[in-house]
Amino acid sequence: MYTINSIDGGVCAAKGFFADGIHIGLKKEGAKDIAFIYSSSLCAIASVFTTNKMTAAPIRHFRAKGEFEGNFVLINSKNANAMTGSAGILDIDEVLNAVQTQFPQIIDPVMSSTGVIGVRLPKAKIIEGSMNFDLTRRDGVSASEAIMTTDTFSKRIAFEIKLDGGMSFRIGAMAKGAGMINPAMATMLCFITTDAAVDKATMQSILDECVHTTFNAASVDGDTSTNDTVLLMANGTSGAFHAGAFRGALESIMLFLAKEMVRDGEGATKLVTYKVTGAINHKEAEIAAKALSNSLLVKTALFGQDPNWGRIASTVGASGVMCDEAFLSIWFDDVCVYRKGELLFNEELEPLAAAVMQKSAFTIHCDIGLQEGEFTAYGCDLGHEYVKINADYRT
Amino acid sequence: MYTINSIDGGVCAAKGFFADGIHIGLKKEGAKDIAFIYSSSLCAIASVFTTNKMTAAPIRHFRAKGEFEGNFVLINSKNANAMTGSAGILDIDEVLNAVQTQFPQIIDPVMSSTGVIGVRLPKAKIIEGSMNFDLTRRDGVSASEAIMTTDTFSKRIAFEIKLDGGMSFRIGAMAKGAGMINPAMATMLCFITTDAAVDKATMQSILDECVHTTFNAASVDGDTSTNDTVLLMANGTSGAFHAGAFRGALESIMLFLAKEMVRDGEGATKLVTYKVTGAINHKEAEIAAKALSNSLLVKTALFGQDPNWGRIASTVGASGVMCDEAFLSIWFDDVCVYRKGELLFNEELEPLAAAVMQKSAFTIHCDIGLQEGEFTAYGCDLGHEYVKINADYRT
Repeated sequence: MYTINSIDGGVCAAKGFFADGIHIGLKKEGAKDIAFIYSSSLCAIASVFTTNKMTAAPIRHFRAKGEFEGNFVLINSKNANAMTGSAGILDIDEVLNAVQTQFPQIIDPVMSSTGVIGVRLPKAKIIEGSMNFDLTRRDGVSASEAIMTTDTFSKRIAFEIKLDGGMSFRIGAMAKGAGMINPAMATMLCFITTDAAVDKATMQSILDECVHTTFNAASVDGDTSTNDTVLLMANGTSGAFHAGAFRGALESIMLFLAKEMVRDGEGATKLVTYKVTGAINHKEAEIAAKALSNSLLVKTALFGQDPNWGRIASTVGASGVMCDEAFLSIWFDDVCVYRKGELLFNEELEPLAAAVMQKSAFTIHCDIGLQEGEFTAYGCDLGHEYVKINADYRT
Repeated sequence: MYTINSIDGGVCAAKGFFADGIHIGLKKEGAKDIAFIYSSSLCAIASVFTTNKMTAAPIRHFRAKGEFEGNFVLINSKNANAMTGSAGILDIDEVLNAVQTQFPQIIDPVMSSTGVIGVRLPKAKIIEGSMNFDLTRRDGVSASEAIMTTDTFSKRIAFEIKLDGGMSFRIGAMAKGAGMINPAMATMLCFITTDAAVDKATMQSILDECVHTTFNAASVDGDTSTNDTVLLMANGTSGAFHAGAFRGALESIMLFLAKEMVRDGEGATKLVTYKVTGAINHKEAEIAAKALSNSLLVKTALFGQDPNWGRIASTVGASGVMCDEAFLSIWFDDVCVYRKGELLFNEELEPLAAAVMQKSAFTIHCDIGLQEGEFTAYGCDLGHEYVKINADYRT
């Protein structure tokens, strides 16, 4: 058996990992804008990237390296280095070569970027700034702040997993993401570090499984970015591993960060869990749950705190999954508003449903009533702030 | 050969058609809320309905009739008669029986509804109100006003088609729709009347073709309603028909109404044409064009008049179609902002692109640069008014 406890430290919680975030002038007013993660031992690295075909330069650069072990990630915000062609990849080489010259202990470094698409990387600034990195710092808070774009709060978490017999290992993580969040893929930047003694193939397969029910179940606006990245770095220095414990802790970490991103969805005021049951299979449940979390009409009804269950029914119907109003039931938390063809709404029930909608977090449960297919997705409302943030993003 | 001229009259333009809209108290402040279309001769009726599986009662009622010819449509706004089960269908029967008793010249009437989902039809009010219909009125304007919901203007059009040799026929139409507009299907109510001498099978096949490039190419918010309906009624009284002329006029009518609906998209300030060329086939061009017209990030950039072409590229990349940044080119009207991997944006070009974005109607052209696949979709921006309208819809 094992125990899992929450600890401080973010990406620096695991043994042998260092990180920091500093300001070099990409963002205004002294806000931190570049970060690093460094491990004193070489790491196996598992990864999940965007399905967007306009893949950003850092992802192409990473993939071009083939099989490798490394110990350093440089991350910048404000510029995505996307749609920048082969020049964008050469820019990364130039930056990373300069960093390696300054810090000879760095081996096979990679880069990750987030921000505006279609503008060349400000490489001179990044090179100059990264000369000031102090690789002995363990400031997971600053690192998580430096990778923020439209995020209103930084996101990090860490767990210590104690195994029977006294061995233990740690997993820490940080993530950024508040817009361009979509169930089609991982949808943001997330960096996870661990001192577990796990090989690359094992951790890649666990990571892939966990992405499906966490980041891929979270939606803010249905868009999938050019830069979505999850990196999981394992340096093995704890000497300990337990697959079940590792998987459980990793999934908890990723689900926490996925929900944090939705809760920080641009302008969001509510975190809504969409639980779909009774579909003819899990895939159809997933389609229906994601249709709900992406529907503009549902999102705006949430923002208006309007228990308009008809939009829930209509969205499930429009999603293309097998369903029929005679078998469908809908709950807002535990308030059943529609049951297998029966209109339940009346003057008593409507205020109860409206009270659920006023909560900052609640569950909308649709039982399609046919078979055993289930999926849970996470979404937020869409209000005036989303429009404001995204209409004015580049300015 | 033939000539096509625009004429007045909407759904009453064609010979033998009558229509009106009146206020019976479903809407506030005297606004018209029920309408009829009546033909003095029996009509063949072609139809296209929503793909939403939570099909509204009026559509189930229509389909249950099987093959029939009729001469009367009753339309109400404010209540969709959707998710109302078999009771909703019995309500329609009761309303239409009362109308037929009052007006014995009505044969095989049908009903069409639009408004809130999940509330029983206010049938007593509708029966009482429809007793006041005057079937000799030809007021296409009032009829088009009575079917509006969140529409800010009514939508109608009519053409006269003159054939060589002096024969002629007419097609008139009205539509409502401003939200729940989505490329997945027809997406609104549209009623088209014609005195052309056309059989049902011919006009159904022409209607199906025209829907693909018109209503199915229009998007406001990516939702498909429970009630979407296009009815095409032909009473044959002109004695004239010409398939090419009929198809051309019908497609023009439907494209005009589709664009009118997008232009009236809830809170929309811009009508944007998304032309995608160079895809590996027409289907992939359609997928990419509809992804653009549905992207929240694109829509909010439009609202902000921000020539953020990176979001265009990213959305095409995320749509799943075959593409590569090295072959992609993007224009805002005739301003090329990205050409086959080359970043063109600079201080001279950005103001030109920004000037296009300030127009109330313009074209975004993406050439994927691979093969000959093409599709054109129509969309609008998304601003604060959309949120306001949809957050407060039921109140």
